[in-house]
Amino acid sequence: MVDLLIKNGTIITANDTYKANIGVTGGKISVITTERIEAKKVIDASGKIVLPGAIDVHTHLQMPFGGTVSADSYEAGTRAAACGGVTTVFDFALQKKGNGLIQTAEERMALCKPQACVDYAFHLAITDFTKEVVEEIETAVAYGIPSFKVFMVYKKEGLMVNDAEICTALEKSKEVGALISVHAENPDLIDSRIAKYLEEGKTSAWYHYMSRPEFVEAEADKRAIHWAQSVDAPLYIVHLANKEGVEAVETAKAKGYKVYAETCPQYLYFNSEVYKREDGRSFVCSPPIKGEESRIKLWEALLDGTIDTVATDHCPFQSYEKDWGKDNFTKIPNGCMGIENMYPYLLSEANKGNIPFNRVVEVCSTNPAKIFGCKTKGNIACGYDADLVIYDKDIDFTITQEKMHSDVDHTIWEGVSLKGYPVMTLLRGSIVYKDGEFIGVPGAGQFLKRARLY
Amino acid sequence: MVDLLIKNGTIITANDTYKANIGVTGGKISVITTERIEAKKVIDASGKIVLPGAIDVHTHLQMPFGGTVSADSYEAGTRAAACGGVTTVFDFALQKKGNGLIQTAEERMALCKPQACVDYAFHLAITDFTKEVVEEIETAVAYGIPSFKVFMVYKKEGLMVNDAEICTALEKSKEVGALISVHAENPDLIDSRIAKYLEEGKTSAWYHYMSRPEFVEAEADKRAIHWAQSVDAPLYIVHLANKEGVEAVETAKAKGYKVYAETCPQYLYFNSEVYKREDGRSFVCSPPIKGEESRIKLWEALLDGTIDTVATDHCPFQSYEKDWGKDNFTKIPNGCMGIENMYPYLLSEANKGNIPFNRVVEVCSTNPAKIFGCKTKGNIACGYDADLVIYDKDIDFTITQEKMHSDVDHTIWEGVSLKGYPVMTLLRGSIVYKDGEFIGVPGAGQFLKRARLY
Amino acid sequence: MVDLLIKNGTIITANDTYKANIGVTGGKISVITTERIEAKKVIDASGKIVLPGAIDVHTHLQMPFGGTVSADSYEAGTRAAACGGVTTVFDFALQKKGNGLIQTAEERMALCKPQACVDYAFHLAITDFTKEVVEEIETAVAYGIPSFKVFMVYKKEGLMVNDAEICTALEKSKEVGALISVHAENPDLIDSRIAKYLEEGKTSAWYHYMSRPEFVEAEADKRAIHWAQSVDAPLYIVHLANKEGVEAVETAKAKGYKVYAETCPQYLYFNSEVYKREDGRSFVCSPPIKGEESRIKLWEALLDGTIDTVATDHCPFQSYEKDWGKDNFTKIPNGCMGIENMYPYLLSEANKGNIPFNRVVEVCSTNPAKIFGCKTKGNIACGYDADLVIYDKDIDFTITQEKMHSDVDHTIWEGVSLKGYPVMTLLRGSIVYKDGEFIGVPGAGQFLKRARLY
Amino acid sequence: MVDLLIKNGTIITANDTYKANIGVTGGKISVITTERIEAKKVIDASGKIVLPGAIDVHTHLQMPFGGTVSADSYEAGTRAAACGGVTTVFDFALQKKGNGLIQTAEERMALCKPQACVDYAFHLAITDFTKEVVEEIETAVAYGIPSFKVFMVYKKEGLMVNDAEICTALEKSKEVGALISVHAENPDLIDSRIAKYLEEGKTSAWYHYMSRPEFVEAEADKRAIHWAQSVDAPLYIVHLANKEGVEAVETAKAKGYKVYAETCPQYLYFNSEVYKREDGRSFVCSPPIKGEESRIKLWEALLDGTIDTVATDHCPFQSYEKDWGKDNFTKIPNGCMGIENMYPYLLSEANKGNIPFNRVVEVCSTNPAKIFGCKTKGNIACGYDADLVIYDKDIDFTITQEKMHSDVDHTIWEGVSLKGYPVMTLLRGSIVYKDGEFIGVPGAGQFLKRARLY
Repeated sequence: MVDLLIKNGTIITANDTYKANIGVTGGKISVITTERIEAKKVIDASGKIVLPGAIDVHTHLQMPFGGTVSADSYEAGTRAAACGGVTTVFDFALQKKGNGLIQTAEERMALCKPQACVDYAFHLAITDFTKEVVEEIETAVAYGIPSFKVFMVYKKEGLMVNDAEICTALEKSKEVGALISVHAENPDLIDSRIAKYLEEGKTSAWYHYMSRPEFVEAEADKRAIHWAQSVDAPLYIVHLANKEGVEAVETAKAKGYKVYAETCPQYLYFNSEVYKREDGRSFVCSPPIKGEESRIKLWEALLDGTIDTVATDHCPFQSYEKDWGKDNFTKIPNGCMGIENMYPYLLSEANKGNIPFNRVVEVCSTNPAKIFGCKTKGNIACGYDADLVIYDKDIDFTITQEKMHSDVDHTIWEGVSLKGYPVMTLLRGSIVYKDGEFIGVPGAGQFLKRARLY
Repeated sequence: MVDLLIKNGTIITANDTYKANIGVTGGKISVITTERIEAKKVIDASGKIVLPGAIDVHTHLQMPFGGTVSADSYEAGTRAAACGGVTTVFDFALQKKGNGLIQTAEERMALCKPQACVDYAFHLAITDFTKEVVEEIETAVAYGIPSFKVFMVYKKEGLMVNDAEICTALEKSKEVGALISVHAENPDLIDSRIAKYLEEGKTSAWYHYMSRPEFVEAEADKRAIHWAQSVDAPLYIVHLANKEGVEAVETAKAKGYKVYAETCPQYLYFNSEVYKREDGRSFVCSPPIKGEESRIKLWEALLDGTIDTVATDHCPFQSYEKDWGKDNFTKIPNGCMGIENMYPYLLSEANKGNIPFNRVVEVCSTNPAKIFGCKTKGNIACGYDADLVIYDKDIDFTITQEKMHSDVDHTIWEGVSLKGYPVMTLLRGSIVYKDGEFIGVPGAGQFLKRARLY
Repeated sequence: MVDLLIKNGTIITANDTYKANIGVTGGKISVITTERIEAKKVIDASGKIVLPGAIDVHTHLQMPFGGTVSADSYEAGTRAAACGGVTTVFDFALQKKGNGLIQTAEERMALCKPQACVDYAFHLAITDFTKEVVEEIETAVAYGIPSFKVFMVYKKEGLMVNDAEICTALEKSKEVGALISVHAENPDLIDSRIAKYLEEGKTSAWYHYMSRPEFVEAEADKRAIHWAQSVDAPLYIVHLANKEGVEAVETAKAKGYKVYAETCPQYLYFNSEVYKREDGRSFVCSPPIKGEESRIKLWEALLDGTIDTVATDHCPFQSYEKDWGKDNFTKIPNGCMGIENMYPYLLSEANKGNIPFNRVVEVCSTNPAKIFGCKTKGNIACGYDADLVIYDKDIDFTITQEKMHSDVDHTIWEGVSLKGYPVMTLLRGSIVYKDGEFIGVPGAGQFLKRARLY
Repeated sequence: MVDLLIKNGTIITANDTYKANIGVTGGKISVITTERIEAKKVIDASGKIVLPGAIDVHTHLQMPFGGTVSADSYEAGTRAAACGGVTTVFDFALQKKGNGLIQTAEERMALCKPQACVDYAFHLAITDFTKEVVEEIETAVAYGIPSFKVFMVYKKEGLMVNDAEICTALEKSKEVGALISVHAENPDLIDSRIAKYLEEGKTSAWYHYMSRPEFVEAEADKRAIHWAQSVDAPLYIVHLANKEGVEAVETAKAKGYKVYAETCPQYLYFNSEVYKREDGRSFVCSPPIKGEESRIKLWEALLDGTIDTVATDHCPFQSYEKDWGKDNFTKIPNGCMGIENMYPYLLSEANKGNIPFNRVVEVCSTNPAKIFGCKTKGNIACGYDADLVIYDKDIDFTITQEKMHSDVDHTIWEGVSLKGYPVMTLLRGSIVYKDGEFIGVPGAGQFLKRARLY
């Protein structure tokens, strides 16, 4: 007698597609079967698809940035996540100068714990590269956080680490089984181009894109890959958005290097033309959305395996905050929303025949779990957490701000038509989302303590 | 209540490794669970690994060749297969000039049906390329055989098809959802080199290798790939054995072409030095085993995904037949044994840490099933045939002819030490091999009727 | 006191462009100077360009082929050559089955000697690959002919050599310092496609192209390169006409292999659309002129150094002979004219700014001389033969059959407008062409005895 | 009647090798001839080779650096140049912060003019990247200096320009027909590694190499190439010394980009093992000499055309200055000597059969002239300056400090055996070096005013 039975659905994992019933006991998958089994509670998934919950490894919830705080509280962000089929989120515990890494993690934990509506883990973003901090990397791994991020940009903002520090981070990570992520753009080019455009009076959102165009991102991608190859450490490139960078990843992989690449749904659906729109400010994020050539290349890379993961870089701001940059694109807080849209959007693409469902599961759930060490997540098999999404292929869904569950007053996805939509999300066997309603509990999300990654 | 329960084993598929019990009903996997379940019969796999049965897509059982017939009858060959963890074999129904394709298949079927100890399917080897035969390709697909083979060699033997015929076959295959396999070597070079060596009195087995060295095989690999790319059809290269050919496959895959490559265990374990041994004749097969550089490259390709499948090209001859070529290597019947050794050898390599177990399952079972359309084979999941191998990692096993189950009086694998060995094979839920003994039934194997492949 | 002074011209060689006077003594360049010098005879080249004479390494004059003889006698062809700035021609002494190589050369020599209006050399085209013939290759080199050609096509016509013979030729050439040229197309594909088109009643000139399209030529290019690389011998590909073949040459060169590529002016100026013209038959040559993509790639290769030489494959037929194929493209004798057009056409392209003059000299004269061992040809420097062309950049010239000097009744170049044209050709210091008139002497051309090439 | 006749020599240029007499009038080559001519003065070059004088495009004479001034005064350096067959030197007019470009050039000119023993030109090294300076680039081109250098290193020393400035320089250069050279190493890595080694007490010359190893240089090479490709401007990489950098140049060239690469004789002859020698300090230069793999790759690149030029980076210091770093490698003034050794060393390699003589002329003279716009230099042809070197292939020469003509008290080339040596150098027809003696005149060298380069 299992606690819960999800019966008659079509199970889709990264590798398989087949009909079977799923039994859950103690929050974990305990049976997969074509037989009938007894259960305390039954969910009928007839005619539906059952998928592993998505793992969004790139979010910025309730994050102080650009003179404000990103508009989704941890509760609102994880609530929206649950409603978008995301059952685990990673966000960034951003080190303040002078603070230690564990201190940073614990402060972040204190904020997240009571609010988390889905399971959560952290990447530590290192900004103050002292010797003590380098030593603390190993402690952080033992603490359960074996993934770190460094910025190659935000020089003036004091977040950037230099090339030597990147190498030190990579070398240390290799020693302790951790993974270094990089935000790859070139700060000097950006600053110089911004200065030029402002001086010329070119202040619209379009010049946000123009000041950080394709080649400015590509350079940093190549440089990061060079350092990783040179010290023979694995590397994870977040929010890859340009064609030439994709090609660099391709080449590195062909040579056998462990270079992982993540892209985001906004880079797959939109192109740089959005910055010419009236509401172009809403799309301002860094790196900016690139030209159509890059968008097409990202899709190719998504299909052929060059891209390993899709994550959201969810970091929304309210319209009035975006408006701060009406007359100066540098005043627009950087960041867009996507946490509730990523999985529905990509599953809709699968439903339309543009990508296999299995591949969507792989990039949104299975690969993130494998790369970042979530051993009980990302798959539907006995022993795994019952983080499940039930998906109805036959629903026609148009995204509007009203239907979304975040605290933000608009969405860049407004009006986008999807074919199929999630009808239920389960977190370790408990229903947290059903038919458009969030029915989970803030604080129910658990911290994912992870071990060294390799 | 399932018919059979295999409990407490560690399940290893191409993608997953986890502990669970497997329930079988009506020959199919009906439950996978960490719960206890009722069963009519129980096999305890505690401490053991449970794997999908291997699918050997390249065998030549009871095949007329080189003036004799390959030494394993269909019964003996499939018996040996079962004892080596192979639960499905494909062999080649070789068209005689003048005969039709369906006729060829049916004659072969009549021979195989009463003898088959495991499930079986056919590739049709086309040698007589008339218009009628080209038309019959579609009929053969409907009949359940959507895979065909053509020879780029054996010109004098009358098996070779020319380049135009290869292109016609590829074009037709694309139309009907079939897959063309090629035996790729260059016949003119071989014939010319043979003539030269014989004239010079160079008659030992070493000159078998010398007359068909690396570049002679590589040329045909490249040519076959060129035709496939030109007509935009998928291609399957059988028994790829040389480095340059592997590189050509790599390049084709990088460009996005559907070129599949198979290699054989003898190319992975031995190198061309064996032809200098006293018993060098035993190793004579075509293409011959290549130099150490090729062996190393094949291992790299096996690990990085360039090689899609491993199969045996099992085609043994008795020692007295091999001796026909004592004074003239061209009189040695071409072919080696491997059907009982492939899976144990590769699993032993996994057990030694040289390749992941998952990857062995992928190349020996899951990929063959996917590429050649065996929809109920190659995986452990609900709804799949219960073709299973139970593997004991702790057995030390040394291969000797006495322990093998074929009719052949020797084995090229004599004396090879393995770490771990299969202790049981199940065919659709019935035990056919246990602890060194074949306990299956000739004729129990079923024909696999397959649909168009894409 | 020199015999002849060409004063005030701008000298253009493969590498330099400068103003100086050229003095000739005994048929050789004996002085280059900015000083005044005494001369028996003076030609004023003020405002003109002085170039090395072109070396056309690919001609078929008075050649029996396709049931007739190519329409330019040796006299007519070399007369036209002189008038087009070509001071040396290579044509093919084509071995008849059963004949020896030296015999072949001598018979050809007897025909050419009294007729030759410019200097001449031979390639030996080997069609009968007996052991004796292989041995005779060395004798031919000693005789002064270190360059050979083999056909990968014309299987039914009995000219084709097989892959083993190509390898033997390459190996032998390496031993004796010779160079093997190949006509690269795949005969099986051609024959099969021809049969198909004729059966379908597709008989126009367009189907000449369709029966030997890009990929049919490319395959043979790649195969020839493979053999050359495998035996580590240099290779020369004649009349390369397709994009994929160019890419194969590029790759081979990047790896450091000595693979030389020649293209022809008709492949640079026309594309396959000509076969749809009323007079499409006139353009029938083998390999056929390819699509626009290939034409563009050939120009790129010409500019970036992938193409080493341009030669004409001059092999014209009269209109009435071309008409034999009115209702069946296979009856059209294969071959076009170009010997009088190559240098003027390419120099005109230089004059229009599409290619440097130096590069035209390199591919039409300097490289042919270096590759094929013409030690006293292909340059303007002391000690070299005074084979010179004086070129007027300011002439506007439209090609018409009337202005040409061959015996053929039409030209595929009819109506083509050139910017600039040769006004004088000198052969070893003697004027053979001046202002539109041939003023040379049949028989004045000398045989170029060449030594081993490397 | 010419002023000077050099008779009976074998002329070797980048492209040709032939016997002829050279007549000089007014400092320029006015005749090349196999005839006898009258001359006021005759030099018999029987049995000798006559070459264009070398053009050393990378020297640092009398340069303030590392707290001292490089040990060769302009006179001493150009004297040594003349004695090593170098007839033109380029050195770097290094902008001081606050100074203008023309001001920088004129100050440098004032210093050089009275001392120059051979002809000279400047590159302007830009260190202070104000708007005014960017504007002045065009003025500098008009002034006769169309080549500029920027440092990607020497961050702490205040010479480095940032990535945005490099891009600005490249964009500007494209506009005005100039060429940007880069010193490519990564400063952050260097500074960080230096700090680490010093802290660990690793202070010997070996740690100079260890603090700027292969990958630290390679990164900057790739980055510079990226910027050049991104803005589509040509780029010149000075003193390329590592394998991976060479490969990056190779790739860029294959894609059709104008990326020029220079290497130095010390990188071709020595490898990093020299830093373990007692006199390791003498070899300290930046970038340091790399490992044997890089040395081998540089030779390949020299032979296959990837390397365009060889220059010396001549920047010697006295032994007592080098000794400042006895206990701390960072105190060693960076720089080695080579101005008198480059041409003799490479010609000796040609004489030993390791590289064609023509290629040595190309990389040491013809290419530098072409790339940097020395229209009357780098060739032996009428109209060119009579900058000539007469070379005796039969001399055995061992380099010792005593035989050298610089002011430095040691040479890194001590004891190196050469086959062949220059016996005479002529500058515009005047003998400046003969049989081991400098016989030129300080101040006789002329400034080379150059025009825009493309």
